[in-house]
Amino acid sequence: MSTYKAPLADIRFALYDVLGAEALFAKLGFADASRDIVDAVLEEGARFNETVLAPLNRVGDEIGCKYDKDTGAVTTPPGFKQAYRQYVEGGWAGLVSPTEFGGQGLPHAAGIPLKEMIDAANLAWGNFPLLSHGATEALLHHGEDWQREVFLKPLVDGRWTGTMCLTEPHCGTDLGLLKTKAVPNADGTYSIDGTKIFITAGEHDFTDNIVHLVLARLPDAPAGSKGISLFIVPKLKVGKDGTVGERNGVRCGAIEHKMGIHGSATCVINFDDAQGYLIGQPHKGLMAMFTMMNTARLAVGLQGLGLSDRAYQNALRYARERLQGRALSGAKQPDKAADPIIVHPDVRRMLLTCKALTEGGRLLGYHAATLVDIAHHADSEQERKEADDLLGFVTPIVKACLTEWGVECTYHALQCFGGHGYIHEHGMEQLARDARITTLYEGTTGIQALDLMGRKVMQLQGAGLRVFLGQIEAFCKQHESDEALKEFVAPLREKAGEWQKLTMSIGQRAVANADEVGAAAYDYLFYSGYVALAYWWARSVAAAESSAQSEAFKAAKRETARFYFARILPRTLAHATAIASGAAPLMGLDAERFDA
Amino acid sequence: MSTYKAPLADIRFALYDVLGAEALFAKLGFADASRDIVDAVLEEGARFNETVLAPLNRVGDEIGCKYDKDTGAVTTPPGFKQAYRQYVEGGWAGLVSPTEFGGQGLPHAAGIPLKEMIDAANLAWGNFPLLSHGATEALLHHGEDWQREVFLKPLVDGRWTGTMCLTEPHCGTDLGLLKTKAVPNADGTYSIDGTKIFITAGEHDFTDNIVHLVLARLPDAPAGSKGISLFIVPKLKVGKDGTVGERNGVRCGAIEHKMGIHGSATCVINFDDAQGYLIGQPHKGLMAMFTMMNTARLAVGLQGLGLSDRAYQNALRYARERLQGRALSGAKQPDKAADPIIVHPDVRRMLLTCKALTEGGRLLGYHAATLVDIAHHADSEQERKEADDLLGFVTPIVKACLTEWGVECTYHALQCFGGHGYIHEHGMEQLARDARITTLYEGTTGIQALDLMGRKVMQLQGAGLRVFLGQIEAFCKQHESDEALKEFVAPLREKAGEWQKLTMSIGQRAVANADEVGAAAYDYLFYSGYVALAYWWARSVAAAESSAQSEAFKAAKRETARFYFARILPRTLAHATAIASGAAPLMGLDAERFDA
Repeated sequence: MSTYKAPLADIRFALYDVLGAEALFAKLGFADASRDIVDAVLEEGARFNETVLAPLNRVGDEIGCKYDKDTGAVTTPPGFKQAYRQYVEGGWAGLVSPTEFGGQGLPHAAGIPLKEMIDAANLAWGNFPLLSHGATEALLHHGEDWQREVFLKPLVDGRWTGTMCLTEPHCGTDLGLLKTKAVPNADGTYSIDGTKIFITAGEHDFTDNIVHLVLARLPDAPAGSKGISLFIVPKLKVGKDGTVGERNGVRCGAIEHKMGIHGSATCVINFDDAQGYLIGQPHKGLMAMFTMMNTARLAVGLQGLGLSDRAYQNALRYARERLQGRALSGAKQPDKAADPIIVHPDVRRMLLTCKALTEGGRLLGYHAATLVDIAHHADSEQERKEADDLLGFVTPIVKACLTEWGVECTYHALQCFGGHGYIHEHGMEQLARDARITTLYEGTTGIQALDLMGRKVMQLQGAGLRVFLGQIEAFCKQHESDEALKEFVAPLREKAGEWQKLTMSIGQRAVANADEVGAAAYDYLFYSGYVALAYWWARSVAAAESSAQSEAFKAAKRETARFYFARILPRTLAHATAIASGAAPLMGLDAERFDA
Repeated sequence: MSTYKAPLADIRFALYDVLGAEALFAKLGFADASRDIVDAVLEEGARFNETVLAPLNRVGDEIGCKYDKDTGAVTTPPGFKQAYRQYVEGGWAGLVSPTEFGGQGLPHAAGIPLKEMIDAANLAWGNFPLLSHGATEALLHHGEDWQREVFLKPLVDGRWTGTMCLTEPHCGTDLGLLKTKAVPNADGTYSIDGTKIFITAGEHDFTDNIVHLVLARLPDAPAGSKGISLFIVPKLKVGKDGTVGERNGVRCGAIEHKMGIHGSATCVINFDDAQGYLIGQPHKGLMAMFTMMNTARLAVGLQGLGLSDRAYQNALRYARERLQGRALSGAKQPDKAADPIIVHPDVRRMLLTCKALTEGGRLLGYHAATLVDIAHHADSEQERKEADDLLGFVTPIVKACLTEWGVECTYHALQCFGGHGYIHEHGMEQLARDARITTLYEGTTGIQALDLMGRKVMQLQGAGLRVFLGQIEAFCKQHESDEALKEFVAPLREKAGEWQKLTMSIGQRAVANADEVGAAAYDYLFYSGYVALAYWWARSVAAAESSAQSEAFKAAKRETARFYFARILPRTLAHATAIASGAAPLMGLDAERFDA
């Protein structure tokens, strides 16, 4: 069985030593987010996740959610419901929500380590509260006052949970095709009819009520994505005064049988003359939905990170314990029957890949969380704007890279176990199966790449990239004569320059041929992710050197950074070359001839 | 549900147009392997696999093998046993086995497409006959006459199946640690005691008897891997005259719960005073086992290929059917609600990656099969020796690359389905789970890399690589002024030159530090695989051009080769750079500090 210990030392290093969270939170006016308080939250969160959620990870996989055809009810795996009660009682649900709605008002960046811990401890369980956050965001930014009063408070305190109802059988990415209908009633409510699929946490036994946020079309809606509105459709009807009434016309029609996250209920939800309230403006639902989606995309990135870390922890333990073969350079533990497999360079390659992508990825993710806080709370408009531009630019990178690296790290970690990794009892194959969803939901990797290339680079003319490149150059300048950082600063500067040139060259080609955008997108996203990680690794070494961390800690950061620059960053060479080849090699083959 | 259609057109192209199998078989003296006969075998094999095995793939996954604790019996999934009967009745079991033992004596290269089809149709089922082939090889090359008479014939005609019993709980890769004991009896038999794990097809209901080939230690055995002997231990006792007697002391103690290949029985086998016969020389068991293992490694490579192809076929169908979004360069099917997703460059990237790795990988695998035939049947000793050297060199490449590409292609194919790929009903997630075993069993990818780098390059001084480079240069020379091939020949030649230099540079570094071998191994293997594939793609274009294939077929080969050279071959840049960085970035971090 795989185990989990919250990586508090590295979490603190990332937050305080690298990202300077203590000063940042103070500057942004979070009076209650002192280091003492945040530390206490991290420690209590670690305890909750290690002792309550992590032990339920296996039973969640083995038993999964159960669906009752007769009642439409979903029963979560043994222990899940009780754990949720503890979560609510511990006040975890509203950790980063505004105090005026019952939250604790902590910065987003102080809550994100908890998110990572939950995902590592029990990804499937974490999907239930996760979707509440999206609904919370949508209500906060687009809800009317009474909607916030009635729906937001129970979501924040965890009495109710939320969902995002977008996908239909014939439309996922292309929401313009959706068919669910909303007809206005005389009393100002709407009658919703349609079928949604892949609704995470769409039905369960944690709470009495579930707040569905549903995309649907009004009768006078224009065709396509400009005719979509967003509705609040609770499982139990709720009056404008907050009175909870009878069962609404909302029913779970089935749950999906999935490769992993068996403990997470993925539901078909049928809306049959269901009573709903319009949220935001008519036909502007997609914009409101994007508010939820951006939060959710960062959150799914964190899922990849959490799984990478848990996988790494277990592979490392196994690599130290498993005795097999001798080091090629001579026996390292001659008194034992064999050396532990961590002596072998190729096992180290797999472990170091996990370590470099996880610890570097942690900074990528946490940094994005600080941007959320800055974008909302910084004093100057310019600061807020820059943070928002950069956040928009890094969001698809965080989502796609952290999840693809999650797939990669769970792959390497399983591989370290040899054949034992393929067996259920060690728990490694569950991590690999669970990780596989993260590159699909909330927009596949390909969709993230298009968002980055098409929207953030082309449409927004790379505003976020400019901010990022400025920060990299500032860092390089600050450390250019620093002996300890020389080996990292020079290649980082070179890659940053290449990044800018690559971006411009794609932009130029795209003028003549729109397919160039799609053809470059995937490789551009990963090129960007690896350069971003090089920056975070260089900053990690710099931060460690000037910190009060132990010499062992500093050495570990330095050696891992060296590994990253020598062994992972060269992937940019393949991505850059693929980008340079343009669209022709992708578009040359006629669609009819793929099986000629 | 995923479907399967045997890719007969590309199989014929690979065998006849590229590898010149018709002339080769004639030259090697296979009188019964005319094109007519082989074609008939391929067609009948396609029918069997498409209609009998492929439809059982899903039930194999859903129901799996069942173990009866009371009797130690294993029941295979519904339909599996009947399919095996049809397989035996169709004469498939002994297709490439010698006629003197009841086989059909076809060349190995004529049998390999059938192997691919079985793996694509039903990987789990294919594991039952697969292991018989390993036992057949060991008996053929190391068995005494009576052993061949008594054990080989029923294996060849499929009445019995075979296994390879190597792994024990504490030893997988490092067989020197194994503990199973063999004590000589007065009657010339041996008494075997010990526990083996991960025994594929170790118990089942296909046949009455199962022939286990078991590694064990004799009482006077030297320690380590030089003290291992090989024994024949049948499930039912068998006399030297072939009389089948009572149940032997062999019992299945459990079957493993695995990530995939649920229809394949992975057994714990307990040997308790079991009667066995020594095969080959005492203490030379490992050598005999390698005979089986090399065959098995090529066979597992083919499993990766089969899964890649099936995954690709289904992703292609879905990408043509699924309407979602519009082409960035303008609507392609304006009369429909949306364009099929195959219009998107990033979907094409995923499909073309599968196509390039599958069709190119087919040649990598089939070519190895022709080398088996040449190594055994060529007239001149030099030809046999060269084929054997090259076979030894490419075997770890075929095993590791085809299986890792199998994981990659099943990944991309699932990704093409979006969220639907994660759901059991489409069958894509089963292919991904099934593929995951192939990079682990018969030696992990890391072990293949060490075999290539440590044994085939360092110990054998790259004899096989020299043969390969000679063939590449001959091809380049032949086509250097061929206009249609120019774009492929120049980069191929460059890569081949770099390959040679990289090999020498690693060899030089390894003199000073043995860890350099292990540090370079993984990247060297994939570097080699991608250059090998560049060669096969260039040869495919050349072969297509001079063949009677349709213009559409020729164009498809040319465009796919272009994609390969532009988008996949650049991965060699990352591998070469990683190799050049040497062992230091892998060995610098103290094992104690991986979680500092």
